[in-house]
Amino acid sequence: MKLPRRVRMVEVGPRDGLQNEARAVPTAIKVALIEQLADAGMPAVEATAFVSPKWVPQMADHAAVMAAIRKQPGVSYPVLVPNMQGLEAALAAGATEVAVFGAASESFSKKNINCSIAGSLARFAPVVATANQQGVRVRGYISCVIDCPYEGAIAPQAVAAVAAALRDMGCYEISLGDTIGTATPARMQAMIAAVNAGVPMTELAVHCHDTYGQALANILAALQLGIATVDSAVAGLGGCPYAKGASGNVASEDVVYMLQGLDIETGVDLQRLFRAGQMICRELGREPASKVARALAAKEA
Amino acid sequence: MKLPRRVRMVEVGPRDGLQNEARAVPTAIKVALIEQLADAGMPAVEATAFVSPKWVPQMADHAAVMAAIRKQPGVSYPVLVPNMQGLEAALAAGATEVAVFGAASESFSKKNINCSIAGSLARFAPVVATANQQGVRVRGYISCVIDCPYEGAIAPQAVAAVAAALRDMGCYEISLGDTIGTATPARMQAMIAAVNAGVPMTELAVHCHDTYGQALANILAALQLGIATVDSAVAGLGGCPYAKGASGNVASEDVVYMLQGLDIETGVDLQRLFRAGQMICRELGREPASKVARALAAKEA
Repeated sequence: MKLPRRVRMVEVGPRDGLQNEARAVPTAIKVALIEQLADAGMPAVEATAFVSPKWVPQMADHAAVMAAIRKQPGVSYPVLVPNMQGLEAALAAGATEVAVFGAASESFSKKNINCSIAGSLARFAPVVATANQQGVRVRGYISCVIDCPYEGAIAPQAVAAVAAALRDMGCYEISLGDTIGTATPARMQAMIAAVNAGVPMTELAVHCHDTYGQALANILAALQLGIATVDSAVAGLGGCPYAKGASGNVASEDVVYMLQGLDIETGVDLQRLFRAGQMICRELGREPASKVARALAAKEA
Repeated sequence: MKLPRRVRMVEVGPRDGLQNEARAVPTAIKVALIEQLADAGMPAVEATAFVSPKWVPQMADHAAVMAAIRKQPGVSYPVLVPNMQGLEAALAAGATEVAVFGAASESFSKKNINCSIAGSLARFAPVVATANQQGVRVRGYISCVIDCPYEGAIAPQAVAAVAAALRDMGCYEISLGDTIGTATPARMQAMIAAVNAGVPMTELAVHCHDTYGQALANILAALQLGIATVDSAVAGLGGCPYAKGASGNVASEDVVYMLQGLDIETGVDLQRLFRAGQMICRELGREPASKVARALAAKEA
């Protein structure tokens, strides 16, 4: 099996994982989670989102979170910004990396961010340009790269077009999101190959949801094509907003376990990652969605 | 990705999945489960075990199960037999396929079947010979092909030796069991490659447990080497007897979903398989461990 020697993990639990939690998670807990994930060796921990509290009440404490985290050298703490107003607030809060969030599906774009794909790209362009002018790098997310909950299968060419546009406007990396977790390995590879025609593999990441249990197989297929950046959420935080009761983000513990077994370096300490996941799950009052976390806990019991 | 065009699924839920259930499952429910799995298109449904009720009380109704199931043409209903006595009872009950269960780990063999690997092979040889003389084919299971709960990593050569011995004595297929689910894709491939030096790929199956969430990635890696027979249990029945609270057999629904997505024929109807899993989970009073089953149920709700 041809595989990368090193993978960069991007931990999205504190933002993507928590944003749909109904009950407000205390700022101090979010800060502790972010710090524990960085202490576990995560090179990037998505910290919060500078979005309107009207839309995402859970992220209303974004500035307080950014002010409180003890930042580690070498670790990046990207934050989501939907528009210029969000970018300005993020910059004021000291963000040194931001992310914009688009979609490869017209229906999803309209329902989720209330504008067409073209409209969203037009909105992102000045955000990315302004951020880059200030030395702040920008990550571009694309959701629904395989299927859309409203319109079904998405053509790989549609994903490729959005990826190329985000790269052209200055995103240093494009994260390809299987938002509803319906991907299987060959579809994943076909989509990545289409995107790779316009964007180098070194500038691509995969962001898999485990709704149908396929995430690790899809990540393995992506690694075999040369992808070396993987998004995940500790304890599988996140759920699936499009299927209540189903699971969401692939669990960081499960990804790290697989990568360790493949002798791929990540710099992440699985035991410390597991503890961070236990801490946030205690706070949320639920079991981790990570099978590795459950197996490790069962061994301890 | 090089993949087989067709995969033969071996459903082990009614035996491997149920055998550790503390509460006796009514015979009529077991029979309904077996019939629903065959109706869903499973070409092989492991039906029961002709073991002593003293050791496995859940399988005490083996003869009644075999007598009651409406057998479909083209579907095989293998049963586990630990020794000659078990074989005789299975043959008397009309079994046309049986399975023997060995291990690649000395410690596991001693703790699980109370004899050395060599001793177990000596016990199986006349069982396999007698079965074959009667036109009854024999499947050989090997447990702990990656790690053993008592002695850790198992050398691929040790697995290869047991596999070759089982084949030499007349087993038509060897099922390679990652009993505690610790495998990752590259270890899986290394083990299979070692076994394949002595046994053709067409006579090998993989039997993955999902304790660490790695099962589908491991199955994908096995398929890429040419393995085309996969064991699984509907609804992920089985748990993990070595880590209470952790999951066991890979869920048939999750495997079928992946194979469908890869355009690999199985002949299995996912919707009917899902219903069979819902039926047995209602009976057991628990949620299916299959992520596909949970996602399908969430979509319906």
